Amino acid sequence: MTAPADIKTTMKQMGLCAKQASDILAQASTDTKNLALTEAAKSIRNSQSTIMVANTNDMLAGQEKGLTPAMLDRLKLDPSRIEAIASGLEAIAALPDPVGTIIANWQRPNGLDISRVRTPLGVIGVIYESRPNVTADAGALCLKAGNPVILRGGSESLNSSKAIHACLLTGLEAAGLPLGAIQLVASSDRAAVGEMLVMTDYIDILVPRGGRSLVERVQRDARVPVFAHLEGLNHVYIDAEADPTKALEITINAKMRRTGICGAVETLLVHADAQSMLPAIIDALDTLRCEVRGDGAVSAHHSAVKPVSQDDWSTEYLDAILSVKIVPSFDAALSHIATYGSHHTDCIVTENKVTAEKFLQSVDSAIVLHNASTQFADGGEFGMGAEIGIATGRIHARGPVGLEQLTSFKYIVRGNGQTRP
Amino acid sequence: MTAPADIKTTMKQMGLCAKQASDILAQASTDTKNLALTEAAKSIRNSQSTIMVANTNDMLAGQEKGLTPAMLDRLKLDPSRIEAIASGLEAIAALPDPVGTIIANWQRPNGLDISRVRTPLGVIGVIYESRPNVTADAGALCLKAGNPVILRGGSESLNSSKAIHACLLTGLEAAGLPLGAIQLVASSDRAAVGEMLVMTDYIDILVPRGGRSLVERVQRDARVPVFAHLEGLNHVYIDAEADPTKALEITINAKMRRTGICGAVETLLVHADAQSMLPAIIDALDTLRCEVRGDGAVSAHHSAVKPVSQDDWSTEYLDAILSVKIVPSFDAALSHIATYGSHHTDCIVTENKVTAEKFLQSVDSAIVLHNASTQFADGGEFGMGAEIGIATGRIHARGPVGLEQLTSFKYIVRGNGQTRP
Repeated sequence: MTAPADIKTTMKQMGLCAKQASDILAQASTDTKNLALTEAAKSIRNSQSTIMVANTNDMLAGQEKGLTPAMLDRLKLDPSRIEAIASGLEAIAALPDPVGTIIANWQRPNGLDISRVRTPLGVIGVIYESRPNVTADAGALCLKAGNPVILRGGSESLNSSKAIHACLLTGLEAAGLPLGAIQLVASSDRAAVGEMLVMTDYIDILVPRGGRSLVERVQRDARVPVFAHLEGLNHVYIDAEADPTKALEITINAKMRRTGICGAVETLLVHADAQSMLPAIIDALDTLRCEVRGDGAVSAHHSAVKPVSQDDWSTEYLDAILSVKIVPSFDAALSHIATYGSHHTDCIVTENKVTAEKFLQSVDSAIVLHNASTQFADGGEFGMGAEIGIATGRIHARGPVGLEQLTSFKYIVRGNGQTRP
Repeated sequence: MTAPADIKTTMKQMGLCAKQASDILAQASTDTKNLALTEAAKSIRNSQSTIMVANTNDMLAGQEKGLTPAMLDRLKLDPSRIEAIASGLEAIAALPDPVGTIIANWQRPNGLDISRVRTPLGVIGVIYESRPNVTADAGALCLKAGNPVILRGGSESLNSSKAIHACLLTGLEAAGLPLGAIQLVASSDRAAVGEMLVMTDYIDILVPRGGRSLVERVQRDARVPVFAHLEGLNHVYIDAEADPTKALEITINAKMRRTGICGAVETLLVHADAQSMLPAIIDALDTLRCEVRGDGAVSAHHSAVKPVSQDDWSTEYLDAILSVKIVPSFDAALSHIATYGSHHTDCIVTENKVTAEKFLQSVDSAIVLHNASTQFADGGEFGMGAEIGIATGRIHARGPVGLEQLTSFKYIVRGNGQTRP
């Protein structure tokens, strides 16, 4: 077991390496960064058996530790998941390089030419759960955006993450980039996370990905700015003027396509005038073995409804469970979302365009949808490419955090001797 | 003297009022917000004598307290400065409303229509020095961008700020907007600032404006995200291939047009091959009563040069003082800026476009200029309208913080029943 003093020294050393890599990475050409990514992909494929051995060790320890099936599933790698990691790296290499992009350019009456140009954001710290693939995804996205990254994955995935990280280093080496560009915290000591939260001299932004307790801890204790990725406590609201088929299909897809992703719906709100749509919806959910929770007004529509408690409205199930509430009005739906939502993704189903626009303008969430499944809350589905996650804060990044969101900008002013009167 | 427990209660109350104003302000029409601003401007003009009385009280107390002439000058109001405050409000009313602007809009192959739309940022806390005009500027900018604001000005300007704030409230009232939209901390107790730093439930972003110690305290202690406005430790670098006339004119303007603004140059770096330009430059500065500090290599060029100390390279004089260094190379200039600069505004004077581009790309500052005075570091000069200040961080806002920088965005997705495969 490592003593806290050692952790402090190690983390500071990693911070220094990252800062040193910063300038080189900021000036690195697109080709160089892409070479690092494609060589890392090759290395992932060549190292399949090594990665599998590491992952088997993690899985065995995880089973002994009593991880839930959902956690074990996130931890697990197999040849096809490893191939997905490799092709994910190649997909990021294929994305346009955001660094150096001219966001805007204009001339002033005095002849000054002003450009707003994308730059890297700085050193990024990513704190995530035990999902080994995030090691590659987050590492690659940060690299492509010109940012050194310090990765701290869940301790249960440490062997798998180390094996994947070794491949990323192979890529960096092949491209002649500093190894400080992508660093992995090799200790499972929780003190390392504590250090990351206060390393204001070395880390410019923290990206916490994971459960509510992790994200809340980071938000509470961090001195470093945070891109919060809170849970997705998402709502589908079926309006009085909803189309019943759309209401059914969107609800089923939003809940059941994949229950474990942050874009899944957790609470269904149904306008009182639309409650005749409930039996068919609950029937379909019941057939798909989704548990439906509701009060007496809801259970009056179907015998399969289980009782709902106050806690349900603020619970992100990430499972085949849906809480359902009948609301007396549109405003009551807005008010429920404002009270219990997590500002992630919310949807209205209605044929009334005026009502739809009111919902889209009023609901204060990163993503608001009209007549479309909440499961579209995904950078790829938005056409923005790979992402680190969905940010629920309003500062800098909101919604899918992809390459562009991992950049900053500066103003470049070109003159020919202008002075200010 | 108010006890800290009272301050805590008062600040929480202000936070609640701000949060309550939040939704109304987010949905307020452009006309309503503009009416509040133009009515506030009228009220400022009508209240000239009241404001002057309040300011006279502040000035007398400030003189007794022994404020420096520069501080007293910032504190001082007169009829023309009061008129400037009123017309500043009208100028902000005339700016386009950023809220609701569609930043981007695109269609996906599945028919989803995605828009990135500007929204308010949230409750903003502005902590500033004893400059009464900031009360109006910051209050108006936050209002126009749809953000409730809690203002905390320097205690020496409290009477003046209160008088100006009363006019802003008159404007809000005339427009039927909640008074919680623009609140002023009415206590000069420093504990109020301490509270603002940790009010994560009520304040979404802090904007500290002022000296290094204030900004550093806020950055160190704040739990609320911060738009840092660090000092402007700005450089002009005269390259080996600089045009002597431009070098002279830009240096003089960058230093002497106004010495007290954050865009003023504080250190002049001169390539060894350009040091023949120094006598004329130092001569002109000396004539304008600007003190020049340098080592033996610099003083060899002019008898007026005073000795420079290590501290000078990291001192923002905001005064008629310039530190000068002869550097052996372009890289030495970059390295000096990287070590001592504050990432605010830096300029290169050269006729060599390749060297200029290298400088513009490499220097990690919010604003980098080629052959133009650093005094252009100003939202108005950029054509961006009024600003709260120049941000030196890389998160969310960088450079001039005007209306657009005081907004966030969300994604609005319009569908016709799409579900995700």
